[in-house]
Amino acid sequence: MSLRSEERCLPESSRQDIHAVILAGGSGTRFWPLSRELSPKQMLSVFGETSLICDTILRARSIVGADAPLEIVVGTVLFDEIRNHLLAQPQLSDAQLEYVIEPVARNTAPALALAAATIEARDPEALVVMLPSDQLVESDEMWVKTMKAALAEAKHDRLVTIGLVPTRPETGYGYIKAASELSHKAPQKGTTSSKLRVASVEAFVEKPDVPTAQRYLEAGNYYWNSGMLVAKARVILEELCRVQGLNAASADNVQIVETARALAAVPEAEHFKAAALRAFEALPSVSFDTAVLELSNRVSVVPTTMNWSDVGSLLALETLVQPDKQGNHIIGEGLAVDSRNTLIYSKDRLLATLGTQDLFVVDTPDATLVAPRERAQDVRLVVQALQNREAPEVREPRVSQRPWGTWNIVEQGNGFKVKELTILPGARLSLQSHERRSEHWVVVAGTATVTQEGTVRDISCGESVFIPARTQHRLENRGTGDLHIIEIQVGDYLGEDDITRYSDDFNRRSY
Amino acid sequence: MSLRSEERCLPESSRQDIHAVILAGGSGTRFWPLSRELSPKQMLSVFGETSLICDTILRARSIVGADAPLEIVVGTVLFDEIRNHLLAQPQLSDAQLEYVIEPVARNTAPALALAAATIEARDPEALVVMLPSDQLVESDEMWVKTMKAALAEAKHDRLVTIGLVPTRPETGYGYIKAASELSHKAPQKGTTSSKLRVASVEAFVEKPDVPTAQRYLEAGNYYWNSGMLVAKARVILEELCRVQGLNAASADNVQIVETARALAAVPEAEHFKAAALRAFEALPSVSFDTAVLELSNRVSVVPTTMNWSDVGSLLALETLVQPDKQGNHIIGEGLAVDSRNTLIYSKDRLLATLGTQDLFVVDTPDATLVAPRERAQDVRLVVQALQNREAPEVREPRVSQRPWGTWNIVEQGNGFKVKELTILPGARLSLQSHERRSEHWVVVAGTATVTQEGTVRDISCGESVFIPARTQHRLENRGTGDLHIIEIQVGDYLGEDDITRYSDDFNRRSY
Repeated sequence: MSLRSEERCLPESSRQDIHAVILAGGSGTRFWPLSRELSPKQMLSVFGETSLICDTILRARSIVGADAPLEIVVGTVLFDEIRNHLLAQPQLSDAQLEYVIEPVARNTAPALALAAATIEARDPEALVVMLPSDQLVESDEMWVKTMKAALAEAKHDRLVTIGLVPTRPETGYGYIKAASELSHKAPQKGTTSSKLRVASVEAFVEKPDVPTAQRYLEAGNYYWNSGMLVAKARVILEELCRVQGLNAASADNVQIVETARALAAVPEAEHFKAAALRAFEALPSVSFDTAVLELSNRVSVVPTTMNWSDVGSLLALETLVQPDKQGNHIIGEGLAVDSRNTLIYSKDRLLATLGTQDLFVVDTPDATLVAPRERAQDVRLVVQALQNREAPEVREPRVSQRPWGTWNIVEQGNGFKVKELTILPGARLSLQSHERRSEHWVVVAGTATVTQEGTVRDISCGESVFIPARTQHRLENRGTGDLHIIEIQVGDYLGEDDITRYSDDFNRRSY
Repeated sequence: MSLRSEERCLPESSRQDIHAVILAGGSGTRFWPLSRELSPKQMLSVFGETSLICDTILRARSIVGADAPLEIVVGTVLFDEIRNHLLAQPQLSDAQLEYVIEPVARNTAPALALAAATIEARDPEALVVMLPSDQLVESDEMWVKTMKAALAEAKHDRLVTIGLVPTRPETGYGYIKAASELSHKAPQKGTTSSKLRVASVEAFVEKPDVPTAQRYLEAGNYYWNSGMLVAKARVILEELCRVQGLNAASADNVQIVETARALAAVPEAEHFKAAALRAFEALPSVSFDTAVLELSNRVSVVPTTMNWSDVGSLLALETLVQPDKQGNHIIGEGLAVDSRNTLIYSKDRLLATLGTQDLFVVDTPDATLVAPRERAQDVRLVVQALQNREAPEVREPRVSQRPWGTWNIVEQGNGFKVKELTILPGARLSLQSHERRSEHWVVVAGTATVTQEGTVRDISCGESVFIPARTQHRLENRGTGDLHIIEIQVGDYLGEDDITRYSDDFNRRSY
């Protein structure tokens, strides 16, 4: 996607001052079994044509400009998956994506500090738009107006939050309590008359109970905390240091900033190494809200009515379809007999309910979850139980996106694995070999161009090719439609890390 | 299994007089998604090492002797599936199985008449032991004792039912009301002193409500109707005619008997043809209970305490495992978090419940059912809804048993299908060809002996072979362990009926 300059928020001269930071590290345990440790919520495409993180990046580009750099903050564990995922998005083919690697997960304060330090090293006065990658936001006029107001406010060295005007007594969100409108917000030349009101923040408050939420709704100066932040890189780091020690959570703020600056000064590859891991591990796991925002007197809020959802539980799937007369939401191959107020999400298999009420069922190729609607916020309990038994279904998805397309495990057994590969038109896998497995490829749609030990030939639909272990091979789709391959792997070890890459269009590593 | 003669119920001289009839025609809609139209409850192996029908046949052989003929009553639709299934049971390899084909399903009165007429044609005085094929009965001393008593009673030209002494006020069964002990049941020479009491039947009563069931339990002369019947072939047909017209259900009894006798006189293959279909279609669909037993004054009951279950709903799966402390029964890959009194049956995939109560979930590779326990008797409503939308999941199982092993569809798409084949040691498929599909076989365990256009060769684990359309081929396992093949079918039509058989160890038909 290429934006025309008039679509950008700020005039051309100041454009390079805005950086987008996308926080891609969420684990998304509330979305299991749709999300997995290696395919968290932000990578799911269930809510639209693209994933939440892809949507977020496109939305960020509408603010910072199509050719501004985008910093993707991600941990070492998810880095390969997120990068593969983003490489596979055609809408991002011209995006200037940069990765800020957290050596180990330490919540948002160290993560934001690392991103701010990375940008500060280039331009301390740069404005930073920090967006969670797993929210659903409509990229409309109100979105642009909201971010314009936040950027203008951030220029005054403020930490600017985005608050949603509440529409119901919601108990699932934290709230931002606004104080009064800021004095320096006199209308400026060149801004529209319908510019959003901006207020200073008096307090951040935890998720309320129902009566309290009702009171907040009626009070008029409480807003849902969106988790977005706009501020200068320098100000983020300054405020971390300035509020150090004001509460227990901020005790190590200076150490966070120093560690972040040190790490920002070394190349990306160093972030994967033991020294970086040790330095980051020494930091407290603390959120930016408790370490800074709740303590600083430089925090503003832009109240907005933009269309926003944090997609906080599997019940968010209900927004995808209209309910039937009995209040059932059925997405995919569901059948609800004598059922009421039941959510069925089942894209690949038949899922029938009989006589159920206030229940949700979410089905995936290798795992299914059944629970009453009122327990939708507790899905992490299931994830914890699965982690305790080291269940593979909590870590790896059965379908994995790659820059060249997707693979999908359809069957596995002792000494073999069957995958369905989809290779996008024009794409090719790396030139590679495997030590311990051989592969049979059967073409079931399209024509495969196969390189094998230096020889290139075309394999038509219905034909097959055998790739012995330890031989160089490459699979390519020179056609105009998708290429589908059934791959049967046979060997004594079938892990994804048995791969040596000799050449790769996507610069991925061998293991 | 070969029984020694002392294990048989009757002395050698009278052995040839006993025939077992296994009613294999049940549709088993109460067991979906485990059961399917083409794989009904009696073919399920979930309750033991073998299927319910295989168990039933083994149990019948313990009564009639290992080399007595066994008549399997089955409809034209299920015939191939049942025969394939029984051919695949090693315990039945020496069994003398004969098939009585119902041209069309017409409930038990026509089915029993057809079986009786088939046996009557050889020996009118033959004793017939008729057993439903989908019950779970312990083949112990009490089983033998019960059948001994029934056979002895049937010799007096009685229609003998088996009644279970109730242990709870069950509302899910019909009851048999016994009158008084029969006068001719004076102890006979050679019988054991602990011989079972036999009574004449006063009435058959429908499934009661709870207070009525409680009253039956306390009365002492009400028994659960097991659906088994022991009688002479001649007596079954005589009684059908004798009670004709005593109620609406028996109005066409003579026609039933005449049609059954006519059909019994023609070879098995004729039963598949239009003339037989028309004759049988003209018969009323009526149960033997309403057409005869409720009207006849020659009905006896053998009350017994044998271990019996009609496996009437999916909740019967709970008998397979001990519950956990919260009363959850988990069979297979289940995880119950904060759940109570929940049944999870999931053999192939992870199925997690969170906060559920009094629920059951039954998962299969292609379909899952979720319902409150109290709705377990209503599963047919789901089956009806699926039949209305012509869902394939109601008809065909994803795993199909064949005389040579099993196949299992692991993936299918436009123009292709992936199957996992398991070929038993020593078994081979038919010599066959397909008009419209080619096949790729990859051996993932064992060694395949492949015949292709007259040439025989061995394909080792990790190797593959291509079978073009319209070429003769055969797959054989000459090894001592199972042979596993991944088969990828490619073609414009992939139905099971695209097969021409040139030679088959199991005498199956081409289509």
